[in-house]
Amino acid sequence: MIRKIEHLGIAVTDLDEAIEIYKKIGLEFVGTEVVDEQKVATAFFKVGESYFELLAATDPSSTIAKFIEKNGGRMHHIALAVDDVEAEIARLQAEGFEMIDKVPRRGAHGNMIAFLHPRATRGTLLEVCSKAKD
Amino acid sequence: MIRKIEHLGIAVTDLDEAIEIYKKIGLEFVGTEVVDEQKVATAFFKVGESYFELLAATDPSSTIAKFIEKNGGRMHHIALAVDDVEAEIARLQAEGFEMIDKVPRRGAHGNMIAFLHPRATRGTLLEVCSKAKD
Repeated sequence: MIRKIEHLGIAVTDLDEAIEIYKKIGLEFVGTEVVDEQKVATAFFKVGESYFELLAATDPSSTIAKFIEKNGGRMHHIALAVDDVEAEIARLQAEGFEMIDKVPRRGAHGNMIAFLHPRATRGTLLEVCSKAKD
Repeated sequence: MIRKIEHLGIAVTDLDEAIEIYKKIGLEFVGTEVVDEQKVATAFFKVGESYFELLAATDPSSTIAKFIEKNGGRMHHIALAVDDVEAEIARLQAEGFEMIDKVPRRGAHGNMIAFLHPRATRGTLLEVCSKAKD
């Protein structure tokens, strides 16, 4: 069951500059978090029931660094909040969707996350996520 | 004042196919609407307090047709709900942001909309929108 847009992941080249831009746009700054596993520094802004998650690479080998090299700074993914990410992976696979993550991994903000392959949606990168149980 | 994510605009090459995909993903289908002024056919899905707006070109001269030609199907824009789009345009311009629309224009769902230039955010296309007053 998909509950809401949890966050929008936006790839940025300069995190500090982007934080100032989104503050000026009028979003509510929440804080920053480094996710070492994914080699990204993130900044969160609250917008209604959702967040903007700005994503900057902390290493050239980061997925985000490669995305920016190809696309420049722009929207990277849409994360949908679900009750149980493991159950959702099973449901989506049963529906025939190709998953990048067949097993959930840890994201920012204590979430367990899984990405669908962008081929599944013909080009848009979706993530499903739920709060970690531990 | 930014209230919430009103919708995410997602450019698609085949609207009927995309509707079936997003239904299977588990989003709540709301309906379709053609916006002649922008030469797009749209399909809406409800996700929490927000919508997904699938966008397909109805004419090769459509902005969406040109976007897809360059980028393929993928996320196109993020629309933020504000109380009064005219006041928001004035505020954003006073903050130094470049607007594509200095005067609101009509979007789908009875919204008045205005786009910021993607340069303003270093690559991400944002829209502000509010309900039409008439």
